[in-house]
Amino acid sequence: MTNTLVTLESRPSGAVQESNFGLKTEAIRELKDGEFLVAIEALSMDPAIRGWMNAGTTYIKGIELGTVMRSFSAGKVVRSKNDSFQIGDYVEGMLGAQTHAISDGSGIRIIDISNSKITHHLGVLGMPGMTAYFGLLKKGEPKPGDIIYISAASGVVGSTVGQIAKIKGCTVIGSAGNDAKCNFLVEECGFDYAINYKTEDLNSKLKEYAPDGVHIFYDNVGGETLDTALLNLARGARVVICGAISQYNDMGNIHGPANYMKIVTARGYMTGIIVFDYVKEWPEAAKEIAGWIYEGKINVKEDVVHGLENYTDTLMMLFTGKNFGKLILTV
Amino acid sequence: MTNTLVTLESRPSGAVQESNFGLKTEAIRELKDGEFLVAIEALSMDPAIRGWMNAGTTYIKGIELGTVMRSFSAGKVVRSKNDSFQIGDYVEGMLGAQTHAISDGSGIRIIDISNSKITHHLGVLGMPGMTAYFGLLKKGEPKPGDIIYISAASGVVGSTVGQIAKIKGCTVIGSAGNDAKCNFLVEECGFDYAINYKTEDLNSKLKEYAPDGVHIFYDNVGGETLDTALLNLARGARVVICGAISQYNDMGNIHGPANYMKIVTARGYMTGIIVFDYVKEWPEAAKEIAGWIYEGKINVKEDVVHGLENYTDTLMMLFTGKNFGKLILTV
Repeated sequence: MTNTLVTLESRPSGAVQESNFGLKTEAIRELKDGEFLVAIEALSMDPAIRGWMNAGTTYIKGIELGTVMRSFSAGKVVRSKNDSFQIGDYVEGMLGAQTHAISDGSGIRIIDISNSKITHHLGVLGMPGMTAYFGLLKKGEPKPGDIIYISAASGVVGSTVGQIAKIKGCTVIGSAGNDAKCNFLVEECGFDYAINYKTEDLNSKLKEYAPDGVHIFYDNVGGETLDTALLNLARGARVVICGAISQYNDMGNIHGPANYMKIVTARGYMTGIIVFDYVKEWPEAAKEIAGWIYEGKINVKEDVVHGLENYTDTLMMLFTGKNFGKLILTV
Repeated sequence: MTNTLVTLESRPSGAVQESNFGLKTEAIRELKDGEFLVAIEALSMDPAIRGWMNAGTTYIKGIELGTVMRSFSAGKVVRSKNDSFQIGDYVEGMLGAQTHAISDGSGIRIIDISNSKITHHLGVLGMPGMTAYFGLLKKGEPKPGDIIYISAASGVVGSTVGQIAKIKGCTVIGSAGNDAKCNFLVEECGFDYAINYKTEDLNSKLKEYAPDGVHIFYDNVGGETLDTALLNLARGARVVICGAISQYNDMGNIHGPANYMKIVTARGYMTGIIVFDYVKEWPEAAKEIAGWIYEGKINVKEDVVHGLENYTDTLMMLFTGKNFGKLILTV
């Protein structure tokens, strides 16, 4: 039995290239006590992977050259010397871009796929979905009648936030970068309004859809989007910082929110979501979201590519905006 | 009987200049029913005045050209056709930069100067003191053992925040722009540490005095001070935005807090204080602060200049850091 793995062969200076990666096959070694073997079925393709390919910082370790690409992956336990992970269990965690992974269980969670697709556990029932769920419910504190604005709304996090907010009785506004994504938000996710930030003026559209301001701003973008949203806060508004994708390419030169004093005049606050703080509550949350999916209240969009040999091309889709929905590579 | 008043003659684009102001004398008109005349004794010189000189926003109205400069002032009722304000009463409120003001009583409060100086009611027992009291207690939520860092700490707001925080059992760090102010903080206000931000490195000093970060940051400064403080937040930190004096001269080009994502990783939040939200609770708070002053737990420092003809120079002291203590202009 062999393992096929995608390795990091060189560090890119800009966009990733085919030559940065290798595809290798190796024998699978014997398990030690406490270990188990996972046959991986699907990889989550995330923008964060590009960062992990750098040499690393004090905050995050880069992937070592010659080793397997880091990846959130999901699969089935096929061998085990660990009582907590039985053969036949489905698991998810940082298992790498490969067909098989040996793990001692640290950071790995067992997933229930009886009522859900395994790929959902990398998206709406995985870290992105949990980020949406806890960020909205614990930090945004939505009340019926509240207006929420979500930036980068067509991603897994954003579209899940908006759909949960609809369940909670909010009016939902989302912004995205093209008309197809905006249509998806309104027609498939039930958003009340979608703003194409590339062709429409965000500030005037927010003023049109929320003349008295938004009660919750769930931000995945930062930069000018955050500046503009701060001009449109209702009294008592909650600004939930989830990400700042507009700033990740130049982390040494972050554009701080110039309109931060608007938080004061709005009698609001700015806070953020760290999804790992709620890890004990994940299973319960995943169960609730799976129920909403089953009831048709949450629409999940996935963009699935097959085959480890397509790893580079699939990863590049993230940075050219070609994917539409949660990007998954199946093995 | 005449009134002498300082008027706004032109709007400054950056720092205020002598030419922005006029000094006029006019006759005092007869009182209508419900009105009273105040002989003003002292004006509060506040950074907010610079903002009022702009054309205005939806949130705050600018001073109209040719009219009296807006000012919190205190004085004595000398004529009255209003039963609630008797001749001999001392009052405080938005009475303008002038020797005499006619008021119908709206926004004016009667002050008790039997156990306090009239000027205290423009500072530690007035709006700045209330800002300190409610900003710290309602928004900072100090707990014994918390470490608080206060910027522009030698001002009346900052020094009052720090002294109340000491009463509440906190460790108090303040920054100020010269050694005399720093000595005042430690020796007269009982701060644990003072940082001269012009000669010492704020970031390394905060790391020295609060290696695990600060639980409360009470910000009067904004800009780079805010950036640096955000690098030094303890888990669960509260960032209370009170002012942004470093930014008021160029409101069109605010330096937003580049390190705002640190609020997220600290599991903290940023909020602000609008003192007028607590106006009903002011008398009770002023009574409590007056008690602390009487007990010697709160030390009050005032910087008093005399004469309306010195209005511009006195106002400019606020922005060059020349004042030391609550800046008052007596009439």
